[in-house]
Amino acid sequence: MTVSEQRLREFTYQVFKAIGCPDADAELATDVLLLSDLRGIDSHGVARLSGYVRLWENGRLNPAPTVRIVHETPTTATVDGDSGLGLVVAPQAMDIAIEKARQYGSGWVAIRNSNHFGIAAYHALKAVQQDMIGYAMTNASPLVAPTFSSERLLGTNPMCYTFPAGQYPPVVVDMATSAAANGKLEIAQRMNVPIPEGWALTPDGKPTTDPNAVTAGGALLPLGSEYGRGSHKGFGLSATVDILSGVLSGANYGPWVPPFVAYLQPLADQPGMGVGHFVGAMRVDGFRPVEEFKANIDQWITRFKNAKRVNPEQGVIIPGEPEYQATQHRKAEGIPLAAKVVESLKVLAEKFGLPPLQR
Amino acid sequence: MTVSEQRLREFTYQVFKAIGCPDADAELATDVLLLSDLRGIDSHGVARLSGYVRLWENGRLNPAPTVRIVHETPTTATVDGDSGLGLVVAPQAMDIAIEKARQYGSGWVAIRNSNHFGIAAYHALKAVQQDMIGYAMTNASPLVAPTFSSERLLGTNPMCYTFPAGQYPPVVVDMATSAAANGKLEIAQRMNVPIPEGWALTPDGKPTTDPNAVTAGGALLPLGSEYGRGSHKGFGLSATVDILSGVLSGANYGPWVPPFVAYLQPLADQPGMGVGHFVGAMRVDGFRPVEEFKANIDQWITRFKNAKRVNPEQGVIIPGEPEYQATQHRKAEGIPLAAKVVESLKVLAEKFGLPPLQR
Repeated sequence: MTVSEQRLREFTYQVFKAIGCPDADAELATDVLLLSDLRGIDSHGVARLSGYVRLWENGRLNPAPTVRIVHETPTTATVDGDSGLGLVVAPQAMDIAIEKARQYGSGWVAIRNSNHFGIAAYHALKAVQQDMIGYAMTNASPLVAPTFSSERLLGTNPMCYTFPAGQYPPVVVDMATSAAANGKLEIAQRMNVPIPEGWALTPDGKPTTDPNAVTAGGALLPLGSEYGRGSHKGFGLSATVDILSGVLSGANYGPWVPPFVAYLQPLADQPGMGVGHFVGAMRVDGFRPVEEFKANIDQWITRFKNAKRVNPEQGVIIPGEPEYQATQHRKAEGIPLAAKVVESLKVLAEKFGLPPLQR
Repeated sequence: MTVSEQRLREFTYQVFKAIGCPDADAELATDVLLLSDLRGIDSHGVARLSGYVRLWENGRLNPAPTVRIVHETPTTATVDGDSGLGLVVAPQAMDIAIEKARQYGSGWVAIRNSNHFGIAAYHALKAVQQDMIGYAMTNASPLVAPTFSSERLLGTNPMCYTFPAGQYPPVVVDMATSAAANGKLEIAQRMNVPIPEGWALTPDGKPTTDPNAVTAGGALLPLGSEYGRGSHKGFGLSATVDILSGVLSGANYGPWVPPFVAYLQPLADQPGMGVGHFVGAMRVDGFRPVEEFKANIDQWITRFKNAKRVNPEQGVIIPGEPEYQATQHRKAEGIPLAAKVVESLKVLAEKFGLPPLQR
């Protein structure tokens, strides 16, 4: 089923309203999910809407949070998300970072007591709109084992950098710090096909191509897959995201990060509050004139697009380019939704007495 | 041959003096190289001393640079390194970042017109001494091919984060964004043993285990090794380092980064000036009290050290821990130098009429 952006936006907004979000928050949360679907990141868009609703049903989500600064300097702050949707808390924190950057050149905000924040790129791209460099990351439910361990101690902990360009779309590096995102395993599971080597371990720590390994208690592997190929680097990046998002903010970290799925309870003895994020912004013109930077970024992109190809059919992909193309396409042609997602939205419509989503 | 830290320090200092470095610069450059050798990063310590000398002989290195700020806001700056040693330029830039952080909570400095800066951890660790989080990165001679290309367009572009801890040594994530550092290939080359799959490509873009592949015109692979295992993420990280270090500062970037080895000439039509770096510092107490942060970092480290092991003999390695242990050991027992390195230092002693290095 393919749905227009406008219809999907209206439907999603009504669901957030139904769980008690104020107008502005419902609009913001909707905008974050829709950008994910527009960019072709189907795993992080409306496919998760019923997941957020279940967190609310389980009393783990405050639909009307008061986001407040609990500590700050001219260019740093810690924000308490009041158990709100990360979809609402993180953009507000990013606005604080951007305002600090406007005044002092850069701004950095650590966020505690939040929940899943959607795609990191949404938050980091807010900076690009102001000719700033954007930075966003979050910790997440433990699924990834550090190198030399088989225990799930880290989330897929994404890290995102965004850079404004001139004639090209912005460069958007938005990546899980695991070898593969969990969504890719879920697809292989549904299709019942083996996964590539290097993505996952069995519960006793053996490499596996079984798509059900993680569901069965195994773990995802850090970027690099194995020690000989540098998986300690993926672990180091994931640790960095966990420390900046969780330890620096006063949120939870490591195995204590509350699970996104509502059927799993958070561990007892939590050392912090909720899920943690970290966002930042730096003015490009804090370093050099914006037009000079953009001219060089354009030259950088042109040079990399023209790199010598291994396979004539496939050129170098500039980070963020496929998502930009997907957005252009889906804004015009609509957003395709998997049958399972359509079904989950139908259930939500019935639950809240909303008009069903129409194509 | 094993040499005491003190003797190696004195010898190295004399070499930097001999090429015309002022006292303070010679001391600083020596300190950066020595920390690398102490930490067990043998590839980036005095093993490179003759490389710096050759750059000077080729007129590509200014031994007495005037490092100056060319653009700034309260928390950002661009620094021109005046073609100096990165070993001297980067610590000075980091001091500027730390001073900005002291005043405003955070400080960020992009550096152009520099040269190879040694280990990133030296610069980022300066922040930790002030209870700040440190950040350092540099672009480098092109050796790495982006995903889907066989062309060397990126350096091994390291990225480093440092975090102060309480009872433990600082957490130091300092990693090339390639699957393997070039030094590892050089070791395999000397020993004439195959390299693991996933490190390198032949000149025509085929995966290879030939240790001579890169010397023969092939390329290193980004972290992740292949597209199916997420090498586009390693490419994205490497691109991030290149853009922050090169494009943001007005240095060179991509294939234009001047080679460290003096027998290769920089490309014509350079878009920027010299090699680029990017460093930063954030006050921990810009986010929460330092003691709270350190207590949680210690708990984080303890939890990860106690993670379930795949192999009972090998526990999880906390980033920076092996280098800390090497430092303790080498400060007490001396620094082992490979025969090839001893020989290169002997040549330098003869060149400059210095007393030979003694054990």
